Amino acid sequence: MDLKQLDKVLEEAFAASTKLYEERGFKRRIGFGKRPALVSVDLANAWTRPGNPFTCDQSKMDNEIIPGMQKLLASFRSKKYPIVHVTTAYQNTDRSDPNTDMGLWHCKIPMEAVDLKNEELWQIDSRIAPQENEYVLLKKRASSFSGTPLSGYLRSCNIDTILVTGVTATACVRTTICDGLSEGFRTIAVKECIGDRVPGAVAWSLYDIDSKFADVETVAKCVNYLDSLPVNH
Amino acid sequence: MDLKQLDKVLEEAFAASTKLYEERGFKRRIGFGKRPALVSVDLANAWTRPGNPFTCDQSKMDNEIIPGMQKLLASFRSKKYPIVHVTTAYQNTDRSDPNTDMGLWHCKIPMEAVDLKNEELWQIDSRIAPQENEYVLLKKRASSFSGTPLSGYLRSCNIDTILVTGVTATACVRTTICDGLSEGFRTIAVKECIGDRVPGAVAWSLYDIDSKFADVETVAKCVNYLDSLPVNH
Amino acid sequence: MDLKQLDKVLEEAFAASTKLYEERGFKRRIGFGKRPALVSVDLANAWTRPGNPFTCDQSKMDNEIIPGMQKLLASFRSKKYPIVHVTTAYQNTDRSDPNTDMGLWHCKIPMEAVDLKNEELWQIDSRIAPQENEYVLLKKRASSFSGTPLSGYLRSCNIDTILVTGVTATACVRTTICDGLSEGFRTIAVKECIGDRVPGAVAWSLYDIDSKFADVETVAKCVNYLDSLPVNH
Amino acid sequence: MDLKQLDKVLEEAFAASTKLYEERGFKRRIGFGKRPALVSVDLANAWTRPGNPFTCDQSKMDNEIIPGMQKLLASFRSKKYPIVHVTTAYQNTDRSDPNTDMGLWHCKIPMEAVDLKNEELWQIDSRIAPQENEYVLLKKRASSFSGTPLSGYLRSCNIDTILVTGVTATACVRTTICDGLSEGFRTIAVKECIGDRVPGAVAWSLYDIDSKFADVETVAKCVNYLDSLPVNH
Repeated sequence: MDLKQLDKVLEEAFAASTKLYEERGFKRRIGFGKRPALVSVDLANAWTRPGNPFTCDQSKMDNEIIPGMQKLLASFRSKKYPIVHVTTAYQNTDRSDPNTDMGLWHCKIPMEAVDLKNEELWQIDSRIAPQENEYVLLKKRASSFSGTPLSGYLRSCNIDTILVTGVTATACVRTTICDGLSEGFRTIAVKECIGDRVPGAVAWSLYDIDSKFADVETVAKCVNYLDSLPVNH
Repeated sequence: MDLKQLDKVLEEAFAASTKLYEERGFKRRIGFGKRPALVSVDLANAWTRPGNPFTCDQSKMDNEIIPGMQKLLASFRSKKYPIVHVTTAYQNTDRSDPNTDMGLWHCKIPMEAVDLKNEELWQIDSRIAPQENEYVLLKKRASSFSGTPLSGYLRSCNIDTILVTGVTATACVRTTICDGLSEGFRTIAVKECIGDRVPGAVAWSLYDIDSKFADVETVAKCVNYLDSLPVNH
Repeated sequence: MDLKQLDKVLEEAFAASTKLYEERGFKRRIGFGKRPALVSVDLANAWTRPGNPFTCDQSKMDNEIIPGMQKLLASFRSKKYPIVHVTTAYQNTDRSDPNTDMGLWHCKIPMEAVDLKNEELWQIDSRIAPQENEYVLLKKRASSFSGTPLSGYLRSCNIDTILVTGVTATACVRTTICDGLSEGFRTIAVKECIGDRVPGAVAWSLYDIDSKFADVETVAKCVNYLDSLPVNH
Repeated sequence: MDLKQLDKVLEEAFAASTKLYEERGFKRRIGFGKRPALVSVDLANAWTRPGNPFTCDQSKMDNEIIPGMQKLLASFRSKKYPIVHVTTAYQNTDRSDPNTDMGLWHCKIPMEAVDLKNEELWQIDSRIAPQENEYVLLKKRASSFSGTPLSGYLRSCNIDTILVTGVTATACVRTTICDGLSEGFRTIAVKECIGDRVPGAVAWSLYDIDSKFADVETVAKCVNYLDSLPVNH
């Protein structure tokens, strides 16, 4: 399809929506708080590398998401705020087994492609590898909060703000952001670090997110914010 | 903006996405289960009627959502399966009070517009009024499952399927559907009964939902399904 | 039964347990944090007043719990930290209706005794009545966190500590404390302000709670802590 | 201490409580449903074997819990209903690291004793080892439901009943049972298969559980129930 035309028409739709939203008091700024965590969603090989059903747009991945994540990781590590590397895998990927831990999601999408026994698939991409003692959170649902201890973990670290990155915009990132806000965290969606695999999906999702659930901010602005904070202790 | 052009370009984007999704094993059918509940999200006056910041597309509301809901309610009532009427309101809508029960969502959208003391606003639209003993669930977040007893309620009723209707497609309906699937329910999005307030939002959201989280089905198909079931007891 | 003998034997059992716990590193102190909320569980008329299946020990209620709560409320109000008045009621108390919002708990205990339509029953006791804008949280389960927006609410208020009071020690208070700790809050059980309705239940529950889930502290110590804090804003 | 005297006095206290509970409509029977799962809590080496801070009563473990579990496992496996082996461990057991995934529980009890890197500790006891494709659920909190996908998993398997076993009665088993009931499952506590490490703890906890949250039933009765069911498919 003609991606330039799609972008142009989406911009017109967003302009019309923004007019209505602003008249009605939507699209407010939530702002950065005082103590952030980085929540990086599904930047594991099955999503970041070619050849898997979950593989995302590789140009965006290699040129924007991974380099942006490298900058964010450097900032978070230098200031010692928590980094949560979220990934997804299942112990039993036999779709015909009524007791599989995949739940029902495999009835919509190919979750059987991420088998816990095949660690390469669900390991975080080596370009943004977790350091020792950084939290690697294995989830089974779309949201990083649903069915995980994430909200309690962040609260126990006295975190008030989450910067969310990863894939995909239409599913795991979007629902992680919705839930993060619901659980009482200031939510920031990092613009360059959110990807997907189909045309228009990132643009449309970030538009919705910025209108209703989180502030969409650039890597540069997030790095500046981290620079302004004291070292966590 | 030119809504016909938007629709046309969205159809092209969806066709391109569908090609990729089908090659990769997305867009599967989850199917109806054996015991359904109807989960109707935010079809309260602040959303269904004119004059409020949350007011949705009135033509869609009056001509499709409400008539479709009337048919669904008749089916569910005749077969005695659970109906959950979800609405949203807050006890303390003073945005300057640090202890308001609005949480942080009012930092993005005008939640202060639905005050618990103004019952008219958050009451379910009289055209689809709850009958005595039907469950009216007051939520404070986007998802009907998050921060509510809904999943436990449905499980205690031995429900395996949820039919989801209401507003808005981009927020409360979408996240209710994601969470419903995560909580282990077969999820059906009722095509004519889901609305929003900005151009393209319903089409795009239903496309994403059908690709990843629920089957989008017509009112007619849902009514036929209900007709095929025994009376609940 | 001989309550004095029960107390004496319980003290012996606790002493033996404490020896083991201390050798093994249990019974640590969690301590007060910087920003507290008061979570008062089920101090509504059905529990605090005579004549209901849920009525608790009236001597303890009138002589310790209510006076202690009055002191705590005065402290929290003077410093403007959040107060959450939790209560329990159901919209549909017909046990034969398969769609009742009571879930399954009525299959163990007489939940049908707290009907939402009978406001007197589930209203907070007038001696400790909520002030306008204090959050009254209606729950349907034992825990004040489970199936409610409480964790997100407290996080959005930037709370790191909860002081828990109310009834009953063996059920709603205990599970609220367990969940509060799990959700990342420093948990304090207020010694004089926790009741029950059967012999030994308060002593045994507070012993378990102090050993594993929260610090049991007196009203006086809690009031001193509040006195030491700045006014919330 | 004199354990016989403790038992005798507890029996008197329970008799007095039962009188009150029965007059008031507590202590009802919830009953077995149609589709059970076995939820076995923390029967991992750190709890079942000597030499760890979490080690439980070894006589009860070896003579009652493990043999009872072997019978239950045989029944569940022959009928192919889900078995969930729950265990607990942490990735970062450095108590001085503000970002540890232990949350705050280590501020009360020695959670640092179960390090994810030391697999022997948190592996399920070899006498009741999981078979391939049985779900091993790693939790970080007391309850097997809190911060885990368990409720959605069980719902996706169409389960209506949980049989709960394991340790400890005062903490992880009790709160798993409370949450299981809240999430809408018929809850059965298996009498011989629940342990602890301090005097009176099992007796008192099972009494409370049977009065308010679950039916306490013997292994023999549970096995008979399983025998009566069709094979799951």
